[in-house]
Amino acid sequence: MSKREIKHLENVKLSDRGDSVVIIDQTLLPNETVYLDLKEAADLYEAIHQLRVRGAPAIGIFAGYALYCLALQILAEDYDAFMEDLKEQAAYLNSSRPTAVNLSWALNRMVAKAETAAGKSKAEVLKDLKEECIAIHDEDIAMCKAISEYGLTLIKDGDGILTHCNAGPLATSRYGTALGPLLLGYERGMDFRVFADETRPLLQGARLTSYELEKAGIDVTLICDNMASIVMKNGWVQACFVGCDRVAANGDAANKIGTSGVAILAKYYGIPFYVLGPTSTIDLNTPTGEDIEIELRDPDEIRSKWYEKPMALEETRCYNPAFDVTPNELIDAIVTDRGICRAPYTESLKALFE
Amino acid sequence: MSKREIKHLENVKLSDRGDSVVIIDQTLLPNETVYLDLKEAADLYEAIHQLRVRGAPAIGIFAGYALYCLALQILAEDYDAFMEDLKEQAAYLNSSRPTAVNLSWALNRMVAKAETAAGKSKAEVLKDLKEECIAIHDEDIAMCKAISEYGLTLIKDGDGILTHCNAGPLATSRYGTALGPLLLGYERGMDFRVFADETRPLLQGARLTSYELEKAGIDVTLICDNMASIVMKNGWVQACFVGCDRVAANGDAANKIGTSGVAILAKYYGIPFYVLGPTSTIDLNTPTGEDIEIELRDPDEIRSKWYEKPMALEETRCYNPAFDVTPNELIDAIVTDRGICRAPYTESLKALFE
Repeated sequence: MSKREIKHLENVKLSDRGDSVVIIDQTLLPNETVYLDLKEAADLYEAIHQLRVRGAPAIGIFAGYALYCLALQILAEDYDAFMEDLKEQAAYLNSSRPTAVNLSWALNRMVAKAETAAGKSKAEVLKDLKEECIAIHDEDIAMCKAISEYGLTLIKDGDGILTHCNAGPLATSRYGTALGPLLLGYERGMDFRVFADETRPLLQGARLTSYELEKAGIDVTLICDNMASIVMKNGWVQACFVGCDRVAANGDAANKIGTSGVAILAKYYGIPFYVLGPTSTIDLNTPTGEDIEIELRDPDEIRSKWYEKPMALEETRCYNPAFDVTPNELIDAIVTDRGICRAPYTESLKALFE
Repeated sequence: MSKREIKHLENVKLSDRGDSVVIIDQTLLPNETVYLDLKEAADLYEAIHQLRVRGAPAIGIFAGYALYCLALQILAEDYDAFMEDLKEQAAYLNSSRPTAVNLSWALNRMVAKAETAAGKSKAEVLKDLKEECIAIHDEDIAMCKAISEYGLTLIKDGDGILTHCNAGPLATSRYGTALGPLLLGYERGMDFRVFADETRPLLQGARLTSYELEKAGIDVTLICDNMASIVMKNGWVQACFVGCDRVAANGDAANKIGTSGVAILAKYYGIPFYVLGPTSTIDLNTPTGEDIEIELRDPDEIRSKWYEKPMALEETRCYNPAFDVTPNELIDAIVTDRGICRAPYTESLKALFE
């Protein structure tokens, strides 16, 4: 197997000028690959709000760079006045998507960094902030790389892998989480055959996963969610790789709607089912999946979004949960940046933090 | 429970004038309910070809009426010349959708009827043909009613029922197959809560099933295919009702893509899974599901159909099987117009024909 070079998608980065953030506008994918160069507060806010940048880690990285770019524009020279402005900008950015944990996490981290710089010159504070946002990005790359390395030990050259939703480069940085092992293995000369569930209703599998695997040169086949069963029955799938939004202390994992169904099919067909994600998504304060609240979204995402005409009557009721919880009994392993956890998860997950 | 009257959708009928066929144009549903009045050969052909009329039984009913209307237009008075024209028209209609078994079945039945009328006057032959096409329709109504009666014994007032694709009035006549027990029970004052999988990629569940249940007044909730798991987990489903395209001698059942996945989920959650269909879909000459060929359809149905813009790159490969096979071990009962069959199906299905 000879090594290959993947042209990694640079979904979020600091511009070469160093005073603005460059992103791929994910709302235009897959039809157009448009890079936006943003530095105005309103534009940075809008990019998060309108999901031009999306995926929890990617939002965190973007927020770090965004706050740094806004800090460069602060006129105050006095430290206290500077901090007041910085916190105001952070609060403004944070209000763009209140439920995004990584958004507030990254902003708080940037503000905290500036707070430890009390007494330094403005130039020095700005230098610290630049280092911090680059660190946030670098740490995410390292974390995805670590998950990818661990995940890669679970599959072998030639395997078929089924994935649901999008947990790749566009949502994170460089390798991604669930797609990371595939990209890393591909770079090392391995070949996989990936089946991407289109992931209704928002179609992240079609619009993003199949796009980024295709761009990376990896063999990908797009299927409707209801085709996972026949694909498994055909013997084409040796493992399932999915991301996660939150993992409870007992290993129950919340992820994009439909993930639990994939896990049940995998169990029926005797195919291992793996959840991949950073240690930060493991929440030991949530005892079980029952304690995870499921967000209900707009019925029009099912009835009419994307379509030329609605596909159901306006009066037809729709149930549109954004997530479901896969019970730990269906998960063969949870792959994190600190290692691979297996049942009993109550012990193996806890051990990650010791 | 007080009786209710359902305003049955008249999806296919002979016009009041008696010389043309009236159908609901199913390609315009659910946004517009347009009735077409057809008598020209090219229009009748086009209606089948363009799926304005669809669903195996409905196509058969339509074909009977269509051939009768074309027979009315035959100029030849001589029996042999009449028969030659009739067979030509039958062959023409039959070429509109070569894989539709009910199409050729109904046309052959009409032609055979005319053949038994050798020696009769043209008026008498036409009268025989009219009786035959009405008989085809009436028999389908009776068959659906019988399936509905048997199916209704499997559920009780207040139950939640999950269905996949469309096996209701629009595909058949009056009650439908998989939806028949729900409509019949509703007429008798029972209430059900139906969950309709939207059924990608052609969205028959959204466009047709939720439409016809809504129109009938039955409580229906539309969901994406990947939400069946959470709906079952929520405890909202007491039974799954699906139709079938072909049932093998051992009880393996081919139906719309995704059906096998629903059956696997139902097994996991301990929910009974029922297949409903006329005895004519049981093919004792097909030993098992392995012998049923799966039609592969155009990838653009996944990539771009219905959408304002494509959802995946043009170069992205798609796998688009039209059907899958649910293994008999996952089927709690097969409900036919001649009774309810249970495992071992090799015996119970065979007994239907004895």
